[in-house]
Amino acid sequence: MGETAPTAVAMYPPMNFASDNWAGAAPAVMSALSRHKTGFEPAYGSDSLTSGISDRFNEIFEREVAVFFVATGSAANSLSLAAYAKPGGIVFCHKTAHIQVDECNCPEFMTGGAKLVGVAGPHGKMTPHGLSAAMSDYPDGVVHHGQVATVSITQATECGSVYSLDEIGAIREAARSRSIPLHMDGARFANALATLGCTPAEMTWKAGVDVLSFGATKNGCWCAEAVVFFDLEAARGFQYLRKRAGHLFSKSRFVAAQLEGYFENDNWLKTAAHANAMAQKLEAVVGDNGGRTAWLVEANELFPILKKSQFDALCSAGAHIYEWPVGDLADNIAPKEDEVCFRMVTSFATTEDDVAAFAKALASAG
Amino acid sequence: MGETAPTAVAMYPPMNFASDNWAGAAPAVMSALSRHKTGFEPAYGSDSLTSGISDRFNEIFEREVAVFFVATGSAANSLSLAAYAKPGGIVFCHKTAHIQVDECNCPEFMTGGAKLVGVAGPHGKMTPHGLSAAMSDYPDGVVHHGQVATVSITQATECGSVYSLDEIGAIREAARSRSIPLHMDGARFANALATLGCTPAEMTWKAGVDVLSFGATKNGCWCAEAVVFFDLEAARGFQYLRKRAGHLFSKSRFVAAQLEGYFENDNWLKTAAHANAMAQKLEAVVGDNGGRTAWLVEANELFPILKKSQFDALCSAGAHIYEWPVGDLADNIAPKEDEVCFRMVTSFATTEDDVAAFAKALASAG
Amino acid sequence: MGETAPTAVAMYPPMNFASDNWAGAAPAVMSALSRHKTGFEPAYGSDSLTSGISDRFNEIFEREVAVFFVATGSAANSLSLAAYAKPGGIVFCHKTAHIQVDECNCPEFMTGGAKLVGVAGPHGKMTPHGLSAAMSDYPDGVVHHGQVATVSITQATECGSVYSLDEIGAIREAARSRSIPLHMDGARFANALATLGCTPAEMTWKAGVDVLSFGATKNGCWCAEAVVFFDLEAARGFQYLRKRAGHLFSKSRFVAAQLEGYFENDNWLKTAAHANAMAQKLEAVVGDNGGRTAWLVEANELFPILKKSQFDALCSAGAHIYEWPVGDLADNIAPKEDEVCFRMVTSFATTEDDVAAFAKALASAG
Amino acid sequence: MGETAPTAVAMYPPMNFASDNWAGAAPAVMSALSRHKTGFEPAYGSDSLTSGISDRFNEIFEREVAVFFVATGSAANSLSLAAYAKPGGIVFCHKTAHIQVDECNCPEFMTGGAKLVGVAGPHGKMTPHGLSAAMSDYPDGVVHHGQVATVSITQATECGSVYSLDEIGAIREAARSRSIPLHMDGARFANALATLGCTPAEMTWKAGVDVLSFGATKNGCWCAEAVVFFDLEAARGFQYLRKRAGHLFSKSRFVAAQLEGYFENDNWLKTAAHANAMAQKLEAVVGDNGGRTAWLVEANELFPILKKSQFDALCSAGAHIYEWPVGDLADNIAPKEDEVCFRMVTSFATTEDDVAAFAKALASAG
Repeated sequence: MGETAPTAVAMYPPMNFASDNWAGAAPAVMSALSRHKTGFEPAYGSDSLTSGISDRFNEIFEREVAVFFVATGSAANSLSLAAYAKPGGIVFCHKTAHIQVDECNCPEFMTGGAKLVGVAGPHGKMTPHGLSAAMSDYPDGVVHHGQVATVSITQATECGSVYSLDEIGAIREAARSRSIPLHMDGARFANALATLGCTPAEMTWKAGVDVLSFGATKNGCWCAEAVVFFDLEAARGFQYLRKRAGHLFSKSRFVAAQLEGYFENDNWLKTAAHANAMAQKLEAVVGDNGGRTAWLVEANELFPILKKSQFDALCSAGAHIYEWPVGDLADNIAPKEDEVCFRMVTSFATTEDDVAAFAKALASAG
Repeated sequence: MGETAPTAVAMYPPMNFASDNWAGAAPAVMSALSRHKTGFEPAYGSDSLTSGISDRFNEIFEREVAVFFVATGSAANSLSLAAYAKPGGIVFCHKTAHIQVDECNCPEFMTGGAKLVGVAGPHGKMTPHGLSAAMSDYPDGVVHHGQVATVSITQATECGSVYSLDEIGAIREAARSRSIPLHMDGARFANALATLGCTPAEMTWKAGVDVLSFGATKNGCWCAEAVVFFDLEAARGFQYLRKRAGHLFSKSRFVAAQLEGYFENDNWLKTAAHANAMAQKLEAVVGDNGGRTAWLVEANELFPILKKSQFDALCSAGAHIYEWPVGDLADNIAPKEDEVCFRMVTSFATTEDDVAAFAKALASAG
Repeated sequence: MGETAPTAVAMYPPMNFASDNWAGAAPAVMSALSRHKTGFEPAYGSDSLTSGISDRFNEIFEREVAVFFVATGSAANSLSLAAYAKPGGIVFCHKTAHIQVDECNCPEFMTGGAKLVGVAGPHGKMTPHGLSAAMSDYPDGVVHHGQVATVSITQATECGSVYSLDEIGAIREAARSRSIPLHMDGARFANALATLGCTPAEMTWKAGVDVLSFGATKNGCWCAEAVVFFDLEAARGFQYLRKRAGHLFSKSRFVAAQLEGYFENDNWLKTAAHANAMAQKLEAVVGDNGGRTAWLVEANELFPILKKSQFDALCSAGAHIYEWPVGDLADNIAPKEDEVCFRMVTSFATTEDDVAAFAKALASAG
Repeated sequence: MGETAPTAVAMYPPMNFASDNWAGAAPAVMSALSRHKTGFEPAYGSDSLTSGISDRFNEIFEREVAVFFVATGSAANSLSLAAYAKPGGIVFCHKTAHIQVDECNCPEFMTGGAKLVGVAGPHGKMTPHGLSAAMSDYPDGVVHHGQVATVSITQATECGSVYSLDEIGAIREAARSRSIPLHMDGARFANALATLGCTPAEMTWKAGVDVLSFGATKNGCWCAEAVVFFDLEAARGFQYLRKRAGHLFSKSRFVAAQLEGYFENDNWLKTAAHANAMAQKLEAVVGDNGGRTAWLVEANELFPILKKSQFDALCSAGAHIYEWPVGDLADNIAPKEDEVCFRMVTSFATTEDDVAAFAKALASAG
């Protein structure tokens, strides 16, 4: 850098399946951002763009919601949980949940010390039974153990699967039986939506979700994450929670602008559907080559289990893929000694060429 | 919104002196952001752009520094203070400091309950004497009162003034006498730098600053704030503090891209110098019309005191200006009964036309 | 220590005016503690003694209250404030309040980062006007400044004065005008009660107090502090707040036992009245010797201002007294160059002999 | 209560095996407390009794240690962990540990949001292998997962077993391999010590313990818990941590007085050995009646597994015993359908008569 003009990385190199947050900005997002680069607008979310996007969220969810932009998915999740925090509060989530594994105790910190109880369950999903059993360790009124506070599900899950509407409803029932709210980590909300083919309303408040972490970054934004409350009462003091955490953007409109491009012409659903379709194709390639996946492939992630030699061949061919821990898979699924499980993530930037290159590399692995 | 294509606000309406964070993105910033919109890059700050900008910071500050992007100035300040937090820690700042007045207790929260002691001082600046007196209320080892933790100065100050290098050095001496570090809130760092005409190194670590909140948002970025440590030891665990607060961007490069445009060709210094010059001109207009300012005009803010009738005329003419509380000004400065004090902020987007319109509106006020 | 049997300090040496928490246990308290030393009782407050004392509190306050023992006055205050905590919450108290000056940020920590705003006012008491002015810096809905959360008064105050019922009522009105609750730090509750000659109900909930830190340690207990809620709704989750802070005693009955002795035969009112009377006599001695006090002497503390030579003579005679900072006293009260202000605290253990010794030492100072 | 004089519970009813914190004060403890009831002593731990007990701790542990009284075992544990807290810190303990199960998130709160990872292991003890495996989920430098912070063991364990010195040493090695400290929850420290027959030094710092929660309440004190640092560097700021949590007693000497009685004439070891012996006898009775225990009986707790009819007979005979969840016992140990596991705790107040009554009740159950 310095005196010479910087040059941009202009193209997408092939077979980058590292993560959906390795991709840049989708064209519509970047275009909207450029469109709104000038002019004065009130700061801290009082601008017309932010207000317009809030209206857009109401339309999308077919009811009044309360929307708050924050900087990251970790913040969205942790502040959502903070909105329902109780002293000694217990949060229930799948044991592979991002809030449990990947947020450096941000949920614990923002809630004043919640304990996150990881619940086992197939395909990265809690079962109502598993959840209820976990909650039963925390009977009401036993001060020593703390008090049940929130249930959190991830949609799509960290394992690449998707809760059906019935499954969400059953989790909701379990949560309601203990009178606690349901949070949805929607870091890959659009991918799940594209899979289920339902409406955003159906996948959230109609199924019993009280608060949603709405993620758009992984699906083509630079940085656009929001907390969406369906429980408007709980949203009332949230602006203070957000500000206290340093998450109130002064130029809020730059997030709003991204979301304008994200939503217009159903771009968000299109990019998500595309990413999902690419994952399906990759899964087929894996199957065609004698492999299987650790969990259901229902969104834009897959976790193939292949021979070590195949994995090595893919790496040699330039595929960006990473080995992945599989936890407690059933014996007939778990990798054998000469096998390896790895993660692949698709996005708006994944192409048919990527799939073809992957297939070719695998085929040549013999 | 909805089905019709949104149209952007394409121009800067005149006389908007509301705040520097009402302006959009400076052209060079937006251009750099567009330049880097595509391609895969590792997430969470491991990308080449972020790494390149870190090198750029080393060059700018003429030594190795540790740079961490965060979402907002409040986060930069609060996490800086958190890096030096102690149980029962006392933070000393000017009583008008942003951390004391405008961050919704984010510093208190991030530090596990620090107490911020506001120190009085002319022109928004602490004096070494005032600071030492405030610190003397907290002798070492008296557990009841807590323990001195950090001194924080704002450069340029919330009153629009700038600490000279000697003044910073004197504050540093006071802090050192109690063995505590010096933080600089540089939300308007570039404006102060342009005023002093010194190097970034001279205004920071050479003057004794240990950690800096480096703000670029007010000076033309969309969202680009960083914590810059000169005290590399203190920076060691900072990545965890940041992540725990939900401030680790996954697509870190979008901040880095903005800063690339910000720094190239000295854009940052140019926009800051421009904003400062506009403030000087506005101050001259105020003086020409029988007014004065509450505090020294040394950066991009001024606080004119004019007749109420003049203020009303400006508002009627469309000026975006706000009345401002003046605190404890000396009697010969403080607004008289028929006078009002208001704030004006200039930025890269302030034009000669704005100044002319302001002068015209004031002249016509009679 | 070690092999030789320890010997107890058996007597109260004269002229110890250092602090009321330097005294040991009042006889009735120690006797009750001994009385209950054996037998099994359920732990964690489910014992019959704790339950009996809770009933006793209901009688004393002439209504149902919710009582929670905690270890210290700092904990009682801080957890009371925590029960009403809001993100970005602002607590208003006198600038000399214990919560502001002497609790090592325990209130800030327990509340998740409240800011305590110290309000000036004569004799250690906030005025309604001063309080309202302080609150007006925090208008509703301005997220940057935070939100008003609680008003806290100390009864008797740190300056040795006592709020009248009318004064408490006026503070309550100011708090109600912003819809926030009123906390009373009653570390010296009994002393204030003895002075006012009113009922506990009149001095608390009938005057608008929502939650009380009930202190008994300074008035003759070993360790007996409680949070007493008149606002039963706010008390609902308090057991979790207390436990989360490590303040739920397993052998709760040992606090209850002390309070049994404290309350029986109106011991608490008798010891408080005694301590107050001793303070009155000491004040008279000060006046007789040409001195004055910095603030009203209405409880068991006095802050005499005497000649430095008199102070030295007292110290030489063995008086335990400490110089005290006087802050911003009026010119006609503040110590002159050859004068010094010091603190004296009386307790159940202060005797007529102590007063006589003090008078004698002062008389001999010439 | 009220007008009639309260009468004390004068005797210990038989077969109360509910918990060791249901017993009152041991005679020597109460006697020392009475001995020190009068006289003036400086507050907040500056008194001669507290200082004398600190010296006593040095003798007991055969080196300089730093001792801090706190109100409860939860506070001792949580503040110990807070002394080593890191942002995103991970604490490793057995999955049945008190800090994990019974402290209402006090550790999470005091540490600013630590995550407690429960590790499985037989008899309530972590194995070095199990610990290392759990730690391996948190590799150094991976900011998402957080950072390893502390290992905590309970001695004696919540299952009634005791770590041998070799076992402690092996845990220490595992902790050292990740450069993190070792905390010991010594709520039943004396019981474990009596079992091992080693010195306090051998069971703590010589085996690698850095900080100890020293509990005396369960073994005959009213309220006497302390944090004991062997790592003097870590102890340096601890007084502020304690005060910030509201755990600095003003009349510190009342805790010191209890410990004086506790330590003199080796009372603490005698009461612990007595309680342990009672547990051994009860275990023998269980065995004699066809029962077994869920875990090793090595301290003052046992978890018999008996026929449901036997359990019912014991309850009918007036035994205070509680059913207990057994978790994941091996098949040959776990209760069968007609069996039940329950907890029994002995203390200084348990008598041979209690054992005899238990044996009689069980014998008559047929």
